This record gives sequence, C-alpha cells and structure tokens, in this order.
Amino acid sequence: MSFRVGIVGISGFGGGEAMRLIASHPSFELVYAAGEGSAGSRLVERFPGVPARLAELRIEPWDPEALPKLDVLFASLPTGMSETALARVPTDVKIVDIGGDHRYVAHWAYGLADVWPAQIAGRTRVANPGCFPAATLTALAPLLAERLIEPGNIVIDAKTGLSGAGRGGADSRFGYAETNENLVPYGLLEHVHMPEIAETIERLSGGSAAGLVFTPHLVPMTRGILVTIYGRGQATTSQCLDAARRFYAGRAFVRVTDRPPQTKWATGSNLAFVSYAADPARNLVIAMGVVDNLGKGAAGQAVQNANLICGLPETAGLDGAPIWP
Amino acid sequence: MSFRVGIVGISGFGGGEAMRLIASHPSFELVYAAGEGSAGSRLVERFPGVPARLAELRIEPWDPEALPKLDVLFASLPTGMSETALARVPTDVKIVDIGGDHRYVAHWAYGLADVWPAQIAGRTRVANPGCFPAATLTALAPLLAERLIEPGNIVIDAKTGLSGAGRGGADSRFGYAETNENLVPYGLLEHVHMPEIAETIERLSGGSAAGLVFTPHLVPMTRGILVTIYGRGQATTSQCLDAARRFYAGRAFVRVTDRPPQTKWATGSNLAFVSYAADPARNLVIAMGVVDNLGKGAAGQAVQNANLICGLPETAGLDGAPIWP
Amino acid sequence: MSFRVGIVGISGFGGGEAMRLIASHPSFELVYAAGEGSAGSRLVERFPGVPARLAELRIEPWDPEALPKLDVLFASLPTGMSETALARVPTDVKIVDIGGDHRYVAHWAYGLADVWPAQIAGRTRVANPGCFPAATLTALAPLLAERLIEPGNIVIDAKTGLSGAGRGGADSRFGYAETNENLVPYGLLEHVHMPEIAETIERLSGGSAAGLVFTPHLVPMTRGILVTIYGRGQATTSQCLDAARRFYAGRAFVRVTDRPPQTKWATGSNLAFVSYAADPARNLVIAMGVVDNLGKGAAGQAVQNANLICGLPETAGLDGAPIWP
Amino acid sequence: MSFRVGIVGISGFGGGEAMRLIASHPSFELVYAAGEGSAGSRLVERFPGVPARLAELRIEPWDPEALPKLDVLFASLPTGMSETALARVPTDVKIVDIGGDHRYVAHWAYGLADVWPAQIAGRTRVANPGCFPAATLTALAPLLAERLIEPGNIVIDAKTGLSGAGRGGADSRFGYAETNENLVPYGLLEHVHMPEIAETIERLSGGSAAGLVFTPHLVPMTRGILVTIYGRGQATTSQCLDAARRFYAGRAFVRVTDRPPQTKWATGSNLAFVSYAADPARNLVIAMGVVDNLGKGAAGQAVQNANLICGLPETAGLDGAPIWP
Repeated sequence: MSFRVGIVGISGFGGGEAMRLIASHPSFELVYAAGEGSAGSRLVERFPGVPARLAELRIEPWDPEALPKLDVLFASLPTGMSETALARVPTDVKIVDIGGDHRYVAHWAYGLADVWPAQIAGRTRVANPGCFPAATLTALAPLLAERLIEPGNIVIDAKTGLSGAGRGGADSRFGYAETNENLVPYGLLEHVHMPEIAETIERLSGGSAAGLVFTPHLVPMTRGILVTIYGRGQATTSQCLDAARRFYAGRAFVRVTDRPPQTKWATGSNLAFVSYAADPARNLVIAMGVVDNLGKGAAGQAVQNANLICGLPETAGLDGAPIWP
Repeated sequence: MSFRVGIVGISGFGGGEAMRLIASHPSFELVYAAGEGSAGSRLVERFPGVPARLAELRIEPWDPEALPKLDVLFASLPTGMSETALARVPTDVKIVDIGGDHRYVAHWAYGLADVWPAQIAGRTRVANPGCFPAATLTALAPLLAERLIEPGNIVIDAKTGLSGAGRGGADSRFGYAETNENLVPYGLLEHVHMPEIAETIERLSGGSAAGLVFTPHLVPMTRGILVTIYGRGQATTSQCLDAARRFYAGRAFVRVTDRPPQTKWATGSNLAFVSYAADPARNLVIAMGVVDNLGKGAAGQAVQNANLICGLPETAGLDGAPIWP
Repeated sequence: MSFRVGIVGISGFGGGEAMRLIASHPSFELVYAAGEGSAGSRLVERFPGVPARLAELRIEPWDPEALPKLDVLFASLPTGMSETALARVPTDVKIVDIGGDHRYVAHWAYGLADVWPAQIAGRTRVANPGCFPAATLTALAPLLAERLIEPGNIVIDAKTGLSGAGRGGADSRFGYAETNENLVPYGLLEHVHMPEIAETIERLSGGSAAGLVFTPHLVPMTRGILVTIYGRGQATTSQCLDAARRFYAGRAFVRVTDRPPQTKWATGSNLAFVSYAADPARNLVIAMGVVDNLGKGAAGQAVQNANLICGLPETAGLDGAPIWP
Repeated sequence: MSFRVGIVGISGFGGGEAMRLIASHPSFELVYAAGEGSAGSRLVERFPGVPARLAELRIEPWDPEALPKLDVLFASLPTGMSETALARVPTDVKIVDIGGDHRYVAHWAYGLADVWPAQIAGRTRVANPGCFPAATLTALAPLLAERLIEPGNIVIDAKTGLSGAGRGGADSRFGYAETNENLVPYGLLEHVHMPEIAETIERLSGGSAAGLVFTPHLVPMTRGILVTIYGRGQATTSQCLDAARRFYAGRAFVRVTDRPPQTKWATGSNLAFVSYAADPARNLVIAMGVVDNLGKGAAGQAVQNANLICGLPETAGLDGAPIWP
C-alpha cells in the first residue's frame, strides 16, 4: 500500500532530508512540496540529483486550504511558524512536525520514537523531538529508567554540526570563512531546547531535573551531534551498558557501543549510538549520544514516526547503512 | 531473485562503499567479505552502523580457494594487486573489479556503463573505469561522438576529494592537519589514469588523443570529483548541451545541466552531472563533469555494472537521492 | 620614522587582514579605521585578539571630509564602491586600493609589486591587482617576458578558498553547510578578472591575449589560491624554472619551486610560489602559481605597495613565516 | 642583544610553530634545528615559506654532544622521549621543554606563564604546560584563587583541533577522510593530562581535586582548543568575570570576555580567552578557555617562557594579531 505524502518547508535542510528519505521509501509517494524560499521552482532545480520521477514536481507556496489529497504531511518550519501554519490542515491528514512548536502540546504525541513507540502508533499528530533532545534523551533514558543517574544535576555538553543552525545567508556568523576552523559555544544557560529536555527527564525518572545544565557548541562540520553528559550515580560502566542493552533490546535504531561513539558513524542514517563510562569512586556517570542532526535529529526520526502512525514497519525506508567516509 | 555477493577489499573506502550500496540493494545479498586490514573482525566492528542482519558477518583473509558459493564478487584492491588476487577466482563467479589492473585487458569488458551498457551486459568480467576517467569520459563522450571537440589537445584539469587518495595512515602527507585548508596539484604530466583516458578518447572519437594533458589536484573535502576540460571546437554551448541530452536520453544516471555542476550534487549517489560552455570565437569548448569518486567513480558504477551483468534493472539499488547538505 | 595609517573597509576580510599586518608593521601606526558594517564599534569588539594598544580604536563611518591626518590609506571596498568613496580623499594622503575600481585607470599605478616595483615607488595612488591576477601574472610574467609561452590561447584554471567570495551572509550560497565538502565552478567565460589578466598579459608579452580562458572554482577552504595555467610553447621544464629564477632573482616574495606548490605553503604570508612543468613534444607549458588570496592577493601586496610608495624596505612588516599547519 | 636559539623536534607541529615564532622574534636567532623525520634536509625543504635567511639551515640528527653554542633550546618531542634526550644538554643552555616529560619534575619550573611568571623568570629549565592544561588552568586560576569554585567535582569537557594529535601518518585514524566531518571523544576517565591538571588545581586552591573529570574530543579543525568547565559555586557571572579581570590585570596574553570565546579568535597567537557564566540558583559556575593548541598551548607559551628566563619583555615576538579568518 502506498501513502500520499507532502512536505512543507522543503527549502530548509530538514525538509530536504525528508525529501531524500521519502524518495527511497517503499510505501511513501511524494505528491506535494511547499516552501517559501523555493516556491515556483521544480524540485530538480532545488535538488539537482533528485530521482527523475520527482524532478518535475512543482514547489508550491504553502496554503493549507489548497492541499491535494494527502495521507501524511511532514512539516519542517522555523520555530514559531508551525503552530499557525498547521492549524488549518484537515484533520484526516496525519502530521509529523519536525519543528519545535508542538512539543509537549496537548493532542500532540511527543515523538521520541525509540523510547515511546507505543504512544506514537495510532496518533495523527506527532511532534518530533529537537535534535539535541533526541541525542540526549536516547542516551539518558536507560539510566533514568533504572535509576542509575540522579535526574538533578545533569550537565549536558552538546556539540552540533552547522546544518543545525539552518541554511546560511540569514546570518553572516554562519558564512564558511567565519565558521570553518572555528568552535563556538552559544546559548549558555538559556538554550531553547532546555525545557524540553528537562520535561522529558522528569517524565522518564519521576524526579526533578531542576539543576539541569545544557551548553551547545557549533562544530565546523555539516552534520552530526555528539552529547557528552555528566551525572552523578554509583553505577559502573558495565551496569550502564547493560541497562541500555536491555532498554533497547529489539529496537532497530539505537546501537549501544563499548567504544565512545563518533558522529560520522551515524551520517545519513536514522541511527543513534549511545555509550557510557562511569566511576563509582567519583560518583560519576558519563553518557554519550551520537545522532545525525538531520537524521535521528530531524527527518529520520520523522519518517520513523510516520511509519508508526501509518502502521508500517518501523524501519521502512530507514534501513540503509550510514554513508562513510 | 537474489544474488549471493562478496567483496574483497572491504577495509578500503571503495570496498566500504560497495558494502553500503549492497546492503540496500533489493537483489543482492552480502554473504562474504574479505580484507587484509580488518580480517578477523565482524563487519559491525569496522562499520558500526551496518544493518543488524550484516553485523555479525566475519571479515575473512582473502583466499580465492576458500570462497563460499558466490554469484558476484566485487574487488576493490590497490593497483597492482588485483591481477594476481583474482586470477584463481572460479570462472562461474562474475567479477566487477573496481581496481585498476584489468582496464583494457583482454577478456575484461571496460565498464563505462553509461556509455557502453550493451557491451557490458552478459559479460562475466568487468573492469570499472578509474574515478577520474569516469568523470572525464562521461562529459566528453557526447562531444567526441558528434565531433564537437578535437580529440587531440584536450586539457583536463581534475580536482578530487581526499578519499580518492585511499585510507590515511600509509602516508603522513594525507593527515588531516596537513591536507585541510590545502590544495595540492600532483602527478603532473604522468598520472596513471592518463593512458586509460587517452585510449577511451580514441575509441570514442576515432582520432588521436596525442596531445592529452591531465592534471589532478587534491581538494580538502572527503568525496567528489570535478573535471574541467578545455578543448578546441566550433560548437556553441547549446549545441554541446543538446548533443549530451541526445547521447544520454533515457539513461538513468547522467544529468545534463545548464548550470556548472557542483560536487555536492552527487554525494553518495551514482549520478554524473555534465555541463558545457563554449565560445566559437575562441575556438573553445569547456566540458565539466562531476561524480562522487566513491559512487560513479567506484562502487556505484560497480553496482551498475553488476546489475548489467546479472540482467537486473540498471538502477536496482541505485535510485536514491544524493545526500545534501 | 612612523607613518600614520588608516583603513577603510575594516569589516571585510581584506580590511581585517590589512589591520593584522599593520599591527605588526615596524613603521606603520594604525590611527583610523572605517567600515560600514562595524561603525561605532571598538576594534576589539570586531577583532577580539587585536593588540591591546589598538583595542579601543573606534571604527568610524566612512567620511573622506573628516579624516584625521593620514600618510597612507588602505581601501578595501566592494567593487564599484571605491571610485566614489576615494574621490575626495586629500591628495597628500597616499592610497593603496585593494578593491577593483582603479586597476588600469589613469593616474593610478598598477600594483603588481613583484613584477614592476620601480613603477610603483614614488607614486601616491596604487591599485592592487585582483587576487586571481596576482597569482596568475606572477606565474606567467617570466614566461611571457622570455617568450616561452604564447600569449594567445592561455587557459587559466583557478581555484580559490571561500574568503575570496567575501563575508558570508550576503548570500545563502556561501553558508557553511552549502559550501563545505563542495567544489563549485562559476563565472565561466565571463569572470570580472579576465580583462585585467588579458591587459597585463599583453603588456608583459607585447602580443595579443585574444584567446584567453579563465575559469574560477570555489574550494572548501578559507584561504588560498592556486592557478593551473596551460599554454603553448616549446620550452622545457628546466627552461621555465630557470627563466623564473632569473626574473625573480633578488626579489623577496616570489619562490620558484621544483615541486608543484600547495596553497598552504603561503597561508598568512605575502609569498607567491610558482612552478612549471613543460613538454615540448606536446607543445605544452604548465605554469602554477600559489598565493594567499588575503596576503599576496590582497592585504599583503597592499602593504608591500605601501612600503614601496613610502620609501620603506619592501619587506617591512612582511617577513614572517607562513602559518603551518 | 640577540640570543642563539635551537629547536629539537622541528619535524613536528610544535617544533614547526616554534620555528615560525622564532623567525619573527626580535631577539632570537635560530642557529640550530634537529629532527628525526627531517634530518639532512634544509629548512626550506620542510618549510617552503621560511624566510630566506633561514632557508639553508641544515636540519641535524639530534645529538646533545654536538650542539653548537646555544643560549636557549626549545624541545618538542613526543611524550616519553625528552627526559633521556635532554639529560645531557649542557647546563648553561637554557631549556624550554614543550613536551610532557618534565612537568612537575624537580628542578624544572612549571611554565604556566600567565599565572606564575615570577616563578619562571631566572630559571634555566622550564616545562611547558600541556595544551589542555594551558586552556583549562588559565580559565580556572582566578576562580580557584578567589574560592569561587569548589576544587573538587570539576568537570572539564575539552575540544581540540587535530594538530593536537600530532602529525598524520602514524595512525590511519587521523587521515583526512576519517576525521573530517567527524567528532570523536577519547581517553575517557584516563587522559594523560589529568594528573597535571589535578596537581595544578590543588596548588591553586589549596584543596583537593579528587573528583576531577576530564573528557577530550577531537574536532575537525586544524588548530584550537576550547574547554568548557562545569563546577560548583555560588558566584554570579559578574563576580567571576571581575575576579578574572583582577587576576589578569596588566597581563598581556589573557583576554577576559563577556561573550563566550571562539577558537578562531586565538589562531596563530599566544592569546588565551576566558569567559564565565554562572547561576547561583543551580550552584553552577561555567568557565570557558580558548587557546591555539600550538600557540599558548605549545610554542607560543614556550617563547613566552623563554622571554621570561632570558630577561626579555614577555611579549617579545608575540605581539601580533591572530590570523582571521
């Protein structure tokens, strides 16, 4: 069976990656694309390597009143824009919102698909987690669930490739010459992803995440997120690894590794890699999580969520190997 | 129907990319992998993101006497090693040699798949073109076939990403700090790919390629080849583009573009992009070709060739969109 | 003796590099800085590592009527802006224009300093060559002067780092994620630097440069230009190298090398590296030139020109080693 | 007055940077260079852009019995090699050891030059701090000195460019294609720099550093270190910044900034940038430190130490602006 699929926000990196994944998906057919920056273009003008069958698809200006018949809509819009933009989408169109507006909003499932798949299946409105939360929470969930880390006092040192900052041009800080060979911390003590992370930590642990610290850094690479998380606990490294292996047993997209994970392991895939190092003598647990910010951190997770709400195999269209090198 | 497939040279970049493409191929099943540097490891140790069904495949030391039953073998060995290594492979195993030893050797088809597919179909031994020849000849073929460029006096200025130099470590010249932010010409007047290019130019044109010049450059990026080719001719830009569109009409993997092509358009795909700029007043024709050196320049073309010799659709396993950004 | 020096265009890359070089110059004192994007800021806000003695210098909006007493003004403005901006600068202020408006304009010396130093010394208005012409002409001058290459039919394949495209933000094509891991040809058959190169080739050779071809490419690195030049001639490699060694004997900034030069050899310096490879059997001469586009291609050459017009040693402030790696 | 200076370990990145800084130093004359990998070469073969007056200096095999008359020797040898290599250097030759063997060894001053200059001046044997300790301790010193952070429970998340891993070639993990677009944590819970950091924290604070955590990461860039340090304390951001401004008042190389520092601010310089963000409600103090790992983290600090032990102005040869972009 084939589902008719649309994308709004095709001009951005998240929308483009959704297009790439849908183009290879065995049950999704891309029939609609909308985007502000590229409306009026054919898909091949924006994505010169798009498969021939999609080349002539016209990119539309977004108009929820003028949608073709759709089964699923992927939305990848800047924060603050999707709430309004999606409000008038017909209720029989399933939506996966890659953007930030519907996380922890009533009637929207929170799409942390590797942790709560059963709560997503059957829903019609799913809010994808942010890219940093996806990496962080996937690594933390087993420890929180098994009480191997204290939910308060968690320090998250996060590093992201520059596609996480959106398309260039809006801001000269993100030009190549300014960002290449540069490492930049930002958003100290106040990053927009912090409340989402705190809320999910509390939901996973039942405890307070009051002392949470989250510091993101821009790294001179295109894709990839690594979070290095420091917490307090008495578990050993083996106990942490075992907990994660139990927690993710049978799950397709989370790989628990003995070695510290590297961002390039995940490039182009929907995989998350997690690992742990702990030292009871220092009351210390380190958790690491790696994702592709456009894969598990955005479009990959969105397709996984779409698979869940469409009743498809969770891995449909997502079972390729990462690109390397 | 499923074909049992093996790879020798899995440790290198070309072998690794072949593994990635085979893992997503609808009719190929990877049952054997050999590689000097990684023999004894499981596939997942070498490629942490490999699909779970392949994770436990053991990498073997190469021994042509001890092969399992195979339909197709992909060989990706350093130049000078595949002639001996493949000599004793049973004749009922089809071979696609990504390495350089069997190009223009008797009994081996020359696998320039977009130009001569009919001469590859049905063969059992195919020698993949080199990465530079793949980019160059795909761009030149229509001009040579229609006599729009003189076969003598062709100047090829080629630029490749560093994965084209093989895996690091063998040579400190290819360490990150030495190669990043650096652009390096090499092999002037004597690159090993020059005879292959000359021979194919002559085959395509019927004329002499005596004055051929080929200058490769290492560019600080991982993947991608762009060749900028300067020749003599009286055609206009439109005539060149039209010739290419005719030549590649109905062919899946060559895209003729009005704009100069960029390497990133092809990343992770088997596509080749070609474009042209000409000025009869200067007796000048410029042809440009872009490929991913590990895709159309190596493993992608190899899978295309394998599809041809197995009687599969030419695009099987190769019809995804490139990864971007 | 100390000269009072100003910069207009301090916000751009060329102006910033001029600031860096002036800050280390034994005879130049920076007393004035103007720039549209950063007017009102202190220098340290724009350049956090500026030496302490310059930190509090206020960046002014450009106003030629309100200049402090200056001996030398460096102008680094976008093409099309410096003609008007500099028209009312008092005549007793010497000007070196890094921008493109005054090249081959009456009353302005053409500042190809390694080739024509005597024609620059004593002048009060000097137009710096473009970055591509600087690399190209330094490599070609000895061959043209000794008639080792035909002035017609010269093909220049040029590659530049992205700082050559100016500061990011003006154009989303130059964002990090779009340009990293990408190689982009542009300006085919019509780049703005072509007339300047043609005029200088004719001046150097006395012949016509009618068939000139110039193709620039954007390379994913911050700094550096390499030009690979293909021409016709009967000289050997040795004859070309010898001609260059004679031509640049005693000159401080041009290095003639047996090996093909690499862009990283020049980073942060005012050096130009040139080398040659020739094959009389193919009637072929290849000339290569490497510069830092912000050094010899912009601010380094500008300081060299300022030294010449101020009667200072040509190497003042320019004799450090390049930064490596 | 001029000092006769030598370098052992010229083939490595640290030794090469020492050469670059000495070449521009007003009081140091490079008269001797030794290096295993390049012995027998002239300096210009290894460093094509070296100033002409140094070009013909012959690189020697290291032999402490055959040194020319030297005032100062810079040693930049792999860990474990300098103790033996330097044991027989005559006592009248001052030594700055950039390598790791003499840190916290009797009779060697610990060269954290911005913190303890008075304890370095007049010594003849100085052990440079490691690159990570240089960044870390410069940021922490003011907080520890004023008791604004608890010396126990400090978490250091460190990020370094790849030149910090030494020259490529020794290890295929550091080839360009493997490391570009990749972010790699390593040395968890056991990095070799941890004891040096712990000892210095205790010396600065008088308290125990027992719970120290240090996690380094390799970042795909050539130069630069950023450390993000998480500690416990009740200070505000302003109190931390004020403490640092007091601590480093009048010191030339440490810049206290309101904004989070970026690695590119320091490239090519001996500067350290420090900043702070604190939240008493979370009992949290974040300290950030940025250095160029080859500058303040190696050769820059070494020259500063050499200035101190030679009685020269501390900034001699080190007062240029960083290279940008």
